Amino acid sequence: MRLRCPVCGKTYDEPVQRCECGEPVEFEPFSGEPYIGKTVWERFWDFWPIEPVLELSLGEGDTPLVRSKLGDEFGVRLYLKNETVNPTWSFKDRGTFLALSHALKASYKAVGTVSTGNMAASVSAYASRFGLRAKILVSQSASDEKLKAVSVYGGEVIRVLGDYGRLYFESLAIGEKLGIYFINSDNPFRIEGYKGIAFEIAEEISPDYVLIPTSSGGLFRGIAKGFIELKESELIDELPTLIAVQAEGCSPICTAFREGKARIERFKRPKTIAKAIANPYPPSGNAVLKLLREFGWKCVSVSDEEILEAQRKLAGEGLFVQPASATGVAALRKLELPEGARVVSILTGSGLKTPGDVQAGKIKECPLGRLEGCLKGA
Amino acid sequence: MRLRCPVCGKTYDEPVQRCECGEPVEFEPFSGEPYIGKTVWERFWDFWPIEPVLELSLGEGDTPLVRSKLGDEFGVRLYLKNETVNPTWSFKDRGTFLALSHALKASYKAVGTVSTGNMAASVSAYASRFGLRAKILVSQSASDEKLKAVSVYGGEVIRVLGDYGRLYFESLAIGEKLGIYFINSDNPFRIEGYKGIAFEIAEEISPDYVLIPTSSGGLFRGIAKGFIELKESELIDELPTLIAVQAEGCSPICTAFREGKARIERFKRPKTIAKAIANPYPPSGNAVLKLLREFGWKCVSVSDEEILEAQRKLAGEGLFVQPASATGVAALRKLELPEGARVVSILTGSGLKTPGDVQAGKIKECPLGRLEGCLKGA
Repeated sequence: MRLRCPVCGKTYDEPVQRCECGEPVEFEPFSGEPYIGKTVWERFWDFWPIEPVLELSLGEGDTPLVRSKLGDEFGVRLYLKNETVNPTWSFKDRGTFLALSHALKASYKAVGTVSTGNMAASVSAYASRFGLRAKILVSQSASDEKLKAVSVYGGEVIRVLGDYGRLYFESLAIGEKLGIYFINSDNPFRIEGYKGIAFEIAEEISPDYVLIPTSSGGLFRGIAKGFIELKESELIDELPTLIAVQAEGCSPICTAFREGKARIERFKRPKTIAKAIANPYPPSGNAVLKLLREFGWKCVSVSDEEILEAQRKLAGEGLFVQPASATGVAALRKLELPEGARVVSILTGSGLKTPGDVQAGKIKECPLGRLEGCLKGA
Repeated sequence: MRLRCPVCGKTYDEPVQRCECGEPVEFEPFSGEPYIGKTVWERFWDFWPIEPVLELSLGEGDTPLVRSKLGDEFGVRLYLKNETVNPTWSFKDRGTFLALSHALKASYKAVGTVSTGNMAASVSAYASRFGLRAKILVSQSASDEKLKAVSVYGGEVIRVLGDYGRLYFESLAIGEKLGIYFINSDNPFRIEGYKGIAFEIAEEISPDYVLIPTSSGGLFRGIAKGFIELKESELIDELPTLIAVQAEGCSPICTAFREGKARIERFKRPKTIAKAIANPYPPSGNAVLKLLREFGWKCVSVSDEEILEAQRKLAGEGLFVQPASATGVAALRKLELPEGARVVSILTGSGLKTPGDVQAGKIKECPLGRLEGCLKGA
C-alpha cells in the first residue's frame, strides 16, 4: 500500500510519517470485500497452520449445538453437534476447505481424494470453488446414482478396478509425482480443519464426554488435537473424555484397544450399515490407539440394530442423519456415564445421502371427500 | 420465583425488598440451560409475533451469505444466501419453527401441512421435535422414495386422492374443526419466520436487488415484510428491489403482472423441472402482485434449460441446489441490472432432495496398475 499526502497529493512507497510539505500522510483508500460474518476461522485465527482463504469459504463450520432429550433415559445431558448443515452436508467440508487453501497457496493445479462418499463430494465441490481440477478415485462398487452427488460439482470421477485399500497409499505416491495434491482422510490440513468442532463446542459448553464416530481416525484426531490445544493454551481447564465409536461389523480400532495391541490389524469381512465408517484398515488407526491410551479415553462399538434404532430416535428429534452419524447416540446405552454428565455427540453427515438405509413409513391413502374422517381416524 | 433472605433464610412469594429481620433479600438460585449462541431469533427479538420456543430450536436460520463469481459476466456483485444448510436443508425450517412455537403455546396436539417436498419434511421434523403429532397431506403422484425423507421424522403421511389444489383450503377448514393446526405455505407465522432472511442479509450488506424463487408467494412475502420492517424501524435507508422469479412452465404471478391483471389466474398445464415452485394457483399470488406494484418491484420467468444451466454453474461454485433454487441465478441473464449492483440470490433447498434432476457425470474406469497413466491422461 502507498502513502499519500491529503494536502499536496504527493505519494510515498516507503513508510514515512509526514509529507515533505509538512502535512501528515495517510494510506491510499482501501477497497474490497469485507469478510462476511465472524467465523470460527477468524475467531481462532492463531490455531491454523496457514491463513484460510476466507474469500473462497462456503460458510463451512459454525454448526449448531442442539440440546437433545435423548440423554434423559441415561441420566446425562446430551448435546448434538450438527455437522449435517455444512455446505456439502458433512463435517468433511471443514478439512477440505483448509486443505484446498493450502493447495491453492502451494500452486497445485489439481487435487484428488480416495472416497465414494462424503469426502468425495466435499473435495469435488471445493476444488471447483477454488478453481482447481479434482480427481476423485472411487471403488468399483460405487453406484452411478450415488456418484451423482460427487460428479455434479465438476470433479473427474475415476472408478478404480483393484484393491481399494491400497489406493490410499498409491494415490499419495502417484499424486506427489504428478503434482496432484491428494487430500485423503487424514491429510494433516484436514485434521486441522476438524479442530474447529472442538473450538466451537468449548465456546458453548464444557463437555465431560464427546462421542465421535470413528473410521479412518481423522475426525477423532482433529477433535482431540483441538481440545488439547485449548488445554495447552489454558483456555479450558480439563480435557473431556473422548470416546471413539465404531460399528461392531467394522471395528479394528476398538478390537486392538480391547486386546491391548500396539497396532491395529485389518478387520476381516467388514459388514455394517454404517458405510461411512467402514474402513477395515484405518490409516490413522494407530495414531488414534495411541491417543486413547495416553489420555485414558475409550473405544466402544455398536451393532447395526442399535445404530438404526438411534437413527430413528434422532429423526424423532428432527435430525435425519446417516447411519454412521447415529453411532454416538447408539453408544449411550453401552456406556455407563455418570449421572448429569455433559455429553456431546457428533452428527457427521446428512441422512439425505443414504436414503436407501431408511425404511419408508407407512403411507395412508384417503379420498379428498373423506379427508375429515381420515384425519380424525389417527 | 421466590425471594429468600440470605441471613435468616425466610422466604417470600411477594416482591419484598428487605427481610423482616432487616437484611436484604435475593431471588432463589436459578438453574437451567443457557440459550446456546446468539441467534437471529434473539438478535431480532422485537420482530416476532410470539416468543420463539428457543429450547426446541434446531439451529434454523443464520445461514451463510456466500460471495459468488457468477455475477461477474453480468457486471454485478452476486451473493448467495445458502438456505440449503438449514436443519432439514431448506428455508422452510425458519417458518416451521415459528409456527410450531405458536402451535405449542396454543396447546394444539397435532399440526399438519399440504406438501410433498421441503415443507412436508420440515413440518414432520419439527412436529416430532416439539412433541406434537403431524398429518402430512401429499398428492397422489408423490413417490414412496421421495416420501421417505418425510416419514422418517415420524409424521403421518396421507396420500390424498383427488384435486390437490383444493386441499389447501379444505385442510384449513377441516383442521380448524378437528383442532389440527395446519401450517401451509403462507401461514402467517411461517411468513414471519422468513423475515429472518432479510434481517440477516441486512446485517451483512445493503443489497440493491434480491432474487427470490417464487411459488406460493410465502417466501417472497416474508422477505418483503422483513425489509419493510427494517425500513420502518429506520434500520436501513432504502428498500432493495425484490424480484420474484418463476419457472416459465408455471408462472401465474409473472403472467398476471405482465398482463396488468389485478388477480392471478390458475396456470394451465404447468410443466417445469423446478417442481418446488410449480404451484399453478399460488395462495399468496394476489398478495405478491400487490407488493410488486406498490413498490415497483419485478417478476421474471426462466426456462427449464436456463434453470439447469444455472444449477450446473452453482455446482461449479461448490453449491448443489434444487432446480427451483437455481432460478434466481438463471434470471440474471434476463435482467439488465446496473453495473456494480449488489445482488443477493436465495438458494432455497438442497440438491440432494432432487438427485433425479441431475445428469450423472461421465465416470472413467481405470485398473489400479495403470493409475498413473489414468491420472496423467486428463
